[in-house]
Amino acid sequence: MSAVEAARRGAFDGSGVAPDDVARIVVRCMDCGAEYSGNRALTMCAACGGLLDVVVPVERRVDAAEFGHGVPAAGAHSGVWRYWPLLPSLPAASIVSRWEGHTPLYRDDRLARYAGLQDGHLELKHEGLNPTASFKDRGMTVGVSHAKAIGARIVACASTGNTSASLAAYAAAADIPSLVLIPEGKVATGKLAQTIAYGARVIQIDGDFDQALSLLRELTAAYDVYLVNSVNPFRLEGQKTIVFELLEQREWRVPDWIVLPGGNLGNSSAFGKALTELHAVGLIDRLPRLAIVQAAGAAPFAAYHAGGYAAFRPVAADTVATAIKIGNPASVPRAKRAVERTNGWVTMVTDDEILDAKAAIDRTGIGCEPASAASLAGLRRLVREGIVGREETAVGVLTGHVLKDTEAIAAYHGDDVAGAPRRGANRPTRVPAELPALERVLADALHG
Amino acid sequence: MSAVEAARRGAFDGSGVAPDDVARIVVRCMDCGAEYSGNRALTMCAACGGLLDVVVPVERRVDAAEFGHGVPAAGAHSGVWRYWPLLPSLPAASIVSRWEGHTPLYRDDRLARYAGLQDGHLELKHEGLNPTASFKDRGMTVGVSHAKAIGARIVACASTGNTSASLAAYAAAADIPSLVLIPEGKVATGKLAQTIAYGARVIQIDGDFDQALSLLRELTAAYDVYLVNSVNPFRLEGQKTIVFELLEQREWRVPDWIVLPGGNLGNSSAFGKALTELHAVGLIDRLPRLAIVQAAGAAPFAAYHAGGYAAFRPVAADTVATAIKIGNPASVPRAKRAVERTNGWVTMVTDDEILDAKAAIDRTGIGCEPASAASLAGLRRLVREGIVGREETAVGVLTGHVLKDTEAIAAYHGDDVAGAPRRGANRPTRVPAELPALERVLADALHG
Repeated sequence: MSAVEAARRGAFDGSGVAPDDVARIVVRCMDCGAEYSGNRALTMCAACGGLLDVVVPVERRVDAAEFGHGVPAAGAHSGVWRYWPLLPSLPAASIVSRWEGHTPLYRDDRLARYAGLQDGHLELKHEGLNPTASFKDRGMTVGVSHAKAIGARIVACASTGNTSASLAAYAAAADIPSLVLIPEGKVATGKLAQTIAYGARVIQIDGDFDQALSLLRELTAAYDVYLVNSVNPFRLEGQKTIVFELLEQREWRVPDWIVLPGGNLGNSSAFGKALTELHAVGLIDRLPRLAIVQAAGAAPFAAYHAGGYAAFRPVAADTVATAIKIGNPASVPRAKRAVERTNGWVTMVTDDEILDAKAAIDRTGIGCEPASAASLAGLRRLVREGIVGREETAVGVLTGHVLKDTEAIAAYHGDDVAGAPRRGANRPTRVPAELPALERVLADALHG
Repeated sequence: MSAVEAARRGAFDGSGVAPDDVARIVVRCMDCGAEYSGNRALTMCAACGGLLDVVVPVERRVDAAEFGHGVPAAGAHSGVWRYWPLLPSLPAASIVSRWEGHTPLYRDDRLARYAGLQDGHLELKHEGLNPTASFKDRGMTVGVSHAKAIGARIVACASTGNTSASLAAYAAAADIPSLVLIPEGKVATGKLAQTIAYGARVIQIDGDFDQALSLLRELTAAYDVYLVNSVNPFRLEGQKTIVFELLEQREWRVPDWIVLPGGNLGNSSAFGKALTELHAVGLIDRLPRLAIVQAAGAAPFAAYHAGGYAAFRPVAADTVATAIKIGNPASVPRAKRAVERTNGWVTMVTDDEILDAKAAIDRTGIGCEPASAASLAGLRRLVREGIVGREETAVGVLTGHVLKDTEAIAAYHGDDVAGAPRRGANRPTRVPAELPALERVLADALHG
């Protein structure tokens, strides 16, 4: 039997690591309540098409001292698997980790003031300090471990961004081949560089993104190809740990708000689930309010929220913040649930507001990719609008490293922009090789 | 008095944070033994021009349980300041940290086999997981904290690479202006993107690198401008913690070898000092051997070593590994001391060997910039040559993140290279939007 024939099952029925353990994990539809065994690669309810949640036991109280204990050796250094009591119990031998998580929770009061909050009232959780430089690694360690557990022969996604880089890295760590499908158009090697370096097979489809995803779904149905898309319930389990870790870093003191960028709304969904679970097991006694920030050019969920959730309408997305440039988010019902459960809010900010907030974050030496800055830009807007009180506390989530998008830096600060320089642009200057010239620069720097 | 006049002292005499504390730190010339107070920004001995060491007390035994305790609050989350008992006692109020350090120590036996070692005998310390994505942050947190302690009005360096990005970030964190001088020629905004984003003033000098450095030295002499170059003894103190941390992660079990890339030889110097100090305070009972790996096109120290340290000759540097493309390293005597004290070795590898090793590291999902891969390439060579035994253990140091040099990825895997594709190149493929085409790709991936 050839490798392809062996893979032509699409059922993941028993060739994985400790299949019985995986089969005991329960996945439940959030709409109709149908339950499935965790030994399959489901991304939607077979009965009603609803979104799926991994069921985590929350009947007993959990003590924070449990975290970091009893974790399988392969996850011992992971800031994701540390939260083992609140994660799906995947077989120890299937766990694939690159020491993700344990990211900084920065305080820089210049940014609190930028947002309009008091000193000490804003912290920033920097997920760009993960192994592939974005928060995606937290979900990917769980997703790829699940793929390994159920015997996936290959893992695949349709993405040109942070997801594909993370998938490629974790698939490489697991020694499972990975496929990344991208729509037709010029392949920007720079943008895909990480994905290519980690060894994913990048396939450019003569078609659009929808065709690519549709083809992937066909492949998934016929072969043991594990589809890693944003509604994969196991990935969301890993993304929950952003909230677990930031609250543990705050010694379980709950901030008034957690502010995060919203694109496909996977993080928003995961954050809501994380908070509900922490509350159920007694680790927090109240819920922070979630504030989800979309880019104005890709804000269908903000519009849905503003309209009282009457009717959801997808949009044609357009924003400089490529990581949240999504016109038809996959996790709308789940994100709505998260907002409702946390008495949360949804807002939107313009590209100018995003780039201005990014410049502010960059100038503190923290740095982030454009989409990340939507957190700070949105918070600033919410404070101005009185939704967030000036005396309230907030944690903002930065989702990717400043190195993820150097083109955005060049566009903002570079001199290839038509017209007048942008206010705050930082352009290299050229001077003669003599001390007086340098002294003039010095004087300028000291006054600047 | 204007800000420029205020800065025109070049003595750093008392305007810093807790100047008395800084003054008690002793800096000693490694050649003539002359001693200086730590309240100055010295980078060479005023008496003989020798390299300077910060004197750290090693008379008493240090217990590993002390680490992480008594650390000033600003450094509480730092993997550098954790080692407070073996670092200069800078005033607590001067410490500037971005939660650097705490980097992974990866084990991936595919790379042990690549090097020719047994499974479990190779670990890789990934310094690319620092805040600005290179090991430079470890030295910079100490350097910029020292600058703040002695009242620097401005910090400066001559560099286009990882040092300037790190300096810019830490200066921004400290709210001290920073100057980065670069030689004439086209400014590649992409390469400098991080530095520009963090807000450093980038000054392009109409002259070469030597003129830039010479001008900076003039400026340093006349003003309170703190020069952050590779021989700054305070930076080396921070770089020591790479060794502290990797040994603590190994529970103080000493590997037979520590292998690292060699450019300016600052890390080699710092590693030697770190090991000497750990041995003196009783934390390790033997020294690992240091293996320093240079790129063949920038290998003056390897030639010096091969010639029995008879005569050192600078070279015109040329290598794809830009981070170690240095023809006249600044820390030669100190690195020689490190090699001699650890019974170490120095070798060199070709650019092809570096790129091949990088591709191997990238393909495991770990990833690194080209210079980092010199560690693995050098180890492989040393095993082949019998210098490192196949049954010995080694830790290799990866100095920068894969995102630091996406151009190198494009050059290696891209199809803009003339002639035949490089063996192992990973090129995107284009297929029609239909299942059979994708099935062929799948078959290929499963057999590949």
